[in-house]
Amino acid sequence: MKILKCLLFVFLFVLFGCLTENDPLPSWNNGAAKQAIVDFVKSTTTKGSPDYVPQEERIATFDQDGTLWVEHPLYTQVVYCLDRVPEVVKEKPELKDQEPFKTILSGDQQAIAKLSMEDLKKILAATLTGMPVNQFREEVNNWISTAKHKKWDKKYTDLTYQPMKEVMAYLRANGYRTYIVTGGGQDFVRVYSQETYGIPPEQVVGTATGVSYDYDKDGRPYLTKEPRLLLNDNDAGKPEGIHLIIGRRPYAAFGNSDGDKQMLEYTWAGEGKRLAMLVLHDDADREYAYGPAEGLPETKVGEFPQSLYDEAVKNGWIVISMKRDWKDIFTHD
Amino acid sequence: MKILKCLLFVFLFVLFGCLTENDPLPSWNNGAAKQAIVDFVKSTTTKGSPDYVPQEERIATFDQDGTLWVEHPLYTQVVYCLDRVPEVVKEKPELKDQEPFKTILSGDQQAIAKLSMEDLKKILAATLTGMPVNQFREEVNNWISTAKHKKWDKKYTDLTYQPMKEVMAYLRANGYRTYIVTGGGQDFVRVYSQETYGIPPEQVVGTATGVSYDYDKDGRPYLTKEPRLLLNDNDAGKPEGIHLIIGRRPYAAFGNSDGDKQMLEYTWAGEGKRLAMLVLHDDADREYAYGPAEGLPETKVGEFPQSLYDEAVKNGWIVISMKRDWKDIFTHD
Repeated sequence: MKILKCLLFVFLFVLFGCLTENDPLPSWNNGAAKQAIVDFVKSTTTKGSPDYVPQEERIATFDQDGTLWVEHPLYTQVVYCLDRVPEVVKEKPELKDQEPFKTILSGDQQAIAKLSMEDLKKILAATLTGMPVNQFREEVNNWISTAKHKKWDKKYTDLTYQPMKEVMAYLRANGYRTYIVTGGGQDFVRVYSQETYGIPPEQVVGTATGVSYDYDKDGRPYLTKEPRLLLNDNDAGKPEGIHLIIGRRPYAAFGNSDGDKQMLEYTWAGEGKRLAMLVLHDDADREYAYGPAEGLPETKVGEFPQSLYDEAVKNGWIVISMKRDWKDIFTHD
Repeated sequence: MKILKCLLFVFLFVLFGCLTENDPLPSWNNGAAKQAIVDFVKSTTTKGSPDYVPQEERIATFDQDGTLWVEHPLYTQVVYCLDRVPEVVKEKPELKDQEPFKTILSGDQQAIAKLSMEDLKKILAATLTGMPVNQFREEVNNWISTAKHKKWDKKYTDLTYQPMKEVMAYLRANGYRTYIVTGGGQDFVRVYSQETYGIPPEQVVGTATGVSYDYDKDGRPYLTKEPRLLLNDNDAGKPEGIHLIIGRRPYAAFGNSDGDKQMLEYTWAGEGKRLAMLVLHDDADREYAYGPAEGLPETKVGEFPQSLYDEAVKNGWIVISMKRDWKDIFTHD
């Protein structure tokens, strides 16, 4: 009997091992979204499959804000820029009495919310450009290691979506290279992408500005971030950035807003099997609810209009419901 | 005695195997240049070495024209553009009587040689932009598979430097990723870089223009090459392109002209052991001779001024003499 018990134990142990090993997406509930991901990976990576894709061509692209981590109530990078204003004013005191810096420093949230796009651009230029590349990296690194999201009192890098990290790990385990293709700053995201997502800097495509080339007093060259826009990596800028930096069409693309539409269309238009997915924020209890789902409020951040929803349905793209498809949302759940 | 002979044979066979296996750079003559490459690879990839570089940071960048393949008497891409003119005029007959197209069509080599930089820009814009990305790839691919260099009556892709291909293979075998960083067109070089150099499209950084995003009559999106310059990948544009597309500072850089100066400086300025090399074209018998070496004529293509030579010597960069350092120049030697 002892032997039987022992065998049973071994059997259960192996069974458990097989079951967990066979589920590369444990934070996903069973359903069409999870199934679509598994089907896509199997059919593009199984030798002999009519949809087989050679390893060097396996590219998957992910929007960041709202697709890989929380984007509400403000994009993380915008919070960074606002937080940097006092420091920038300390370095350039003449800005203290100039708008929009004066309003930011006042702390008047209502007035801040009313700032125009032109005002925001001034803040972005003042906080994201004008400094050596190395200094910028250090500033972002210091901030991202300590700043916290008020709703959860957690670091932003702890507010990444566990189910999407599982998708990236699953794709990588099957020979895909995973890229972030973000409207956010390329230099900003590259600071933490390796540690946060396992994505190296050369696999981050984002909104990019030029750099100038100068020599320090010892004759050593250094690069300074300039407010000269090279790539606005939103909307049609996403396929443009993909063409510029990767030079290959992705086989899978993940987004959550109108700014990702062209990236998904471009991915979807390629030959053979493709995967195009949109994250729908419909979980007010665990995260936020906004977008085209019934009764959800429209917002400016991460806009997911009805037209995008209709295009997704028409094309056969998969809309991921955070509420139904995700068992856990955050790693800390 | 038979056994002894047999043992001697085995000994010689193994010895020969060891000797050839131990030389990753068989087309290089022994000397300072070859030794510098071997020393660099050993000290940056041997665990425990004070100059050890983690694999993910091992980046080596190579200029193309004059560094990886022949650039005289004209850059290959310029030959392509001139060759394309009749085809472009066929599509747009109104160009036939307009300059500089008229002069190109006349075939008058003296008049063509006198065309201004503005004229050249018009030809580049007409032949490198205005078409869908896929069509451009096809056009370049057709041309590069057939067009020949007059001096050797060989395809341009057969006029790559065997010693440099060995350096790239040697670096890759030691965990380095090899990038082309060229003043030439990024889209142009990406067409043949994999087959010619073993370098995938995403590891080609070059002069880049924007693309527009449109839909065909079936509603499928496609990208069209636009004459909007995103990156002029020459001079300070090379570190800018490296920052934009790689986001890491190279540990080794190879060039041959003034346009590579900033890339070499930027590489050299990093911490730890670095390698910076310049190819000097001093072999009129086997290729061309131009640049700062004694008695060499000055040229516009691939300019290597005395000031660059002096900076190389001062910094400890290595100047590669094609004549002395390269046993063979081309694979077909």
